[in-house]
Amino acid sequence: MDFKPFQPPKRTLMGPGPSDVSERVLHAMARPTIGHLDPAFIGMMDEVKQLLQYAFQTKNELTLPISAPGSAGMESCFVNLVERGDKVIVCQNGVFGGRMKENVERIGGTAVMVEDDWGKPVDPNKLEQALKDHPDAKVVAFVHAETSTGAQSDAETLVKLAHKHDCLTIVDAVTSLGGTALKVDEWDIDAIYSGTQKCLSAPPGLSPVSFNERAAEAIRNRKTKVQSWFLDMNLVMGYWGAGAKRAYHHTAPINSLYALHESLLILKEEGLENSWARHQQNHLALKAGLEAMGLGFVVDEAHRLPQLNAVYIPDGVDDAAVRNKLLQDYNLEIGAGLGVLAGKVWRLGLMGHACSAENVSYCLNSLDEVLTGMGAPIQSGVAVDTANKVIAA
Amino acid sequence: MDFKPFQPPKRTLMGPGPSDVSERVLHAMARPTIGHLDPAFIGMMDEVKQLLQYAFQTKNELTLPISAPGSAGMESCFVNLVERGDKVIVCQNGVFGGRMKENVERIGGTAVMVEDDWGKPVDPNKLEQALKDHPDAKVVAFVHAETSTGAQSDAETLVKLAHKHDCLTIVDAVTSLGGTALKVDEWDIDAIYSGTQKCLSAPPGLSPVSFNERAAEAIRNRKTKVQSWFLDMNLVMGYWGAGAKRAYHHTAPINSLYALHESLLILKEEGLENSWARHQQNHLALKAGLEAMGLGFVVDEAHRLPQLNAVYIPDGVDDAAVRNKLLQDYNLEIGAGLGVLAGKVWRLGLMGHACSAENVSYCLNSLDEVLTGMGAPIQSGVAVDTANKVIAA
Repeated sequence: MDFKPFQPPKRTLMGPGPSDVSERVLHAMARPTIGHLDPAFIGMMDEVKQLLQYAFQTKNELTLPISAPGSAGMESCFVNLVERGDKVIVCQNGVFGGRMKENVERIGGTAVMVEDDWGKPVDPNKLEQALKDHPDAKVVAFVHAETSTGAQSDAETLVKLAHKHDCLTIVDAVTSLGGTALKVDEWDIDAIYSGTQKCLSAPPGLSPVSFNERAAEAIRNRKTKVQSWFLDMNLVMGYWGAGAKRAYHHTAPINSLYALHESLLILKEEGLENSWARHQQNHLALKAGLEAMGLGFVVDEAHRLPQLNAVYIPDGVDDAAVRNKLLQDYNLEIGAGLGVLAGKVWRLGLMGHACSAENVSYCLNSLDEVLTGMGAPIQSGVAVDTANKVIAA
Repeated sequence: MDFKPFQPPKRTLMGPGPSDVSERVLHAMARPTIGHLDPAFIGMMDEVKQLLQYAFQTKNELTLPISAPGSAGMESCFVNLVERGDKVIVCQNGVFGGRMKENVERIGGTAVMVEDDWGKPVDPNKLEQALKDHPDAKVVAFVHAETSTGAQSDAETLVKLAHKHDCLTIVDAVTSLGGTALKVDEWDIDAIYSGTQKCLSAPPGLSPVSFNERAAEAIRNRKTKVQSWFLDMNLVMGYWGAGAKRAYHHTAPINSLYALHESLLILKEEGLENSWARHQQNHLALKAGLEAMGLGFVVDEAHRLPQLNAVYIPDGVDDAAVRNKLLQDYNLEIGAGLGVLAGKVWRLGLMGHACSAENVSYCLNSLDEVLTGMGAPIQSGVAVDTANKVIAA
């Protein structure tokens, strides 16, 4: 056991997350650790809350980072809003809807599944039918931006339907926050969770969440205690609620929160709408290049997420060999397919700091070289200018 | 909302944690983020596992950092080993035993409490009586090092008793790991959890845990699914077990793991026994100074933790005013009392990187100046040399 300090390679992260973290955020993370009860820390946490409210476009008091990755953020929404015996309608159109089902069942609730094909958005008509068939449902849960396919669902419409039938809503925004339009108050979302390692480009490890007053009221009126002490929002409200006493109920991940603060500051400086536009613009450039190369998208254009581009692997091409070569020879990480799409697609991320014109070019050129070198049936020599025009093929 | 990058003050952290984090660990944390499926990252995680096995003194395969703070580490032990209807004997001699009770009850188990006064170690005789009274108990849980009081319990004896009565054991080692003798295999502990922000001196946010084969077998043989998806060890074993396929079940907190790796490397370089001896030596110096000053310890000498020194606040002294002055004028953080000891004691930490002769002197001198300045009834002018001798009073 003769180990040395770990020196990671410098990668370009264009998979489904984590995305590239800027030097500015990394430097912030390396600032001296202070106590979680220190007034200086509490002041910073006030800013984190306001910056998260901005990112989520909400005035919700209960807006905060859970001290664990996105899957704990998901669990925080479910364990707080669902009790044993409750019925939850879960819309599934990819991997993460399936994880929602797991969450409901582990609480002792019943999950009514509304299934759509992977790569399609959630169908509002199917949801409406399920709501009619199950008038006793209490919660509707769906994924806004499916990281496994790159499909975007119409959150506003789905939430409206749920409310029409007196259901609360839980929305997965792990991949959407910061990268594509998301308006928590305008769309009247009750509970939402995200991650730091996608379009916010902070290191993984925290999960921003937000609960509106309707959700907070439901949590206060629970018949039973929340099954997780760590994720119990009743305890968390003691810190984050209006006029709360700042009685932190566990030791906060101080340095990770420095990083989140800095990444949210960068988002604020750019402006949320500008960030959404940048993701869309770079997506169009990447799309132009990929299509010119002959690669086809999994998701229809109308429902495609700019920050997660799932494309079919050309026939006869060795999935793992391509990804390994990109990683080893180009320091470029792209994502593999998940679940039913494993081995069939690649997932190209354009998230946060990694979403740049330079990275689009680098990714297209690298992919071109590797695929051509392997004799894959693609159109080689593709290049794209910054106005998204294919300039050579 | 005109925020700036957050520049934390440089504190000396001598409370109950977080402790001071070295520049070396902070720099490690700021290295470039890579993906959690990157072969370079997986190699580092193999080292983290081996280094944690060293720190815990165990060969347990299932030894890993939970991706969340110590309270999630606690919850991971309880939700995996306890099922609805199970009876758990919980020994309580401070705040954290009470939190164990919460964990048991939120799972739907029954907690049989064995109570000792705060500041005393867990009494093995009381535990033995409870084991006789409750032959159907399945698990015994106790805190090795009570962070709320600084009392150390005899883990080896308590585990032996539990096993004699066919109970599994869950041990809280949040404050003990790295700072005082802890031998998981020799003492035959079944499940144990700790934190990174105490004697390991990494930033808070991760919780090292270890499960022996007896515990792993119990988890595999559960009648029901673990109520938390995020903390389900059956899923985690897919990554960390022997011959596992490295199928990480959530996005790992990459940069926090860089920091943990570096802090464990520092512990290995120093040597575990040397670290225990350093904590003891600096504790003796601090104790000599505090007692010369006239401050009394909460815990009897025989059961005192070197890394957590709880002393009574002198009569008539304003608790918060002293701590605020130390923080504002000396950049020195010490801890307040918790629960029944709130307002009655201070908790002086000597943990990991913060456990140094310089910090002992700095703490004694600062406390002396502040207390004298407030007219507190203490013996002023105390100083201690590095051999723990009081050299001036």
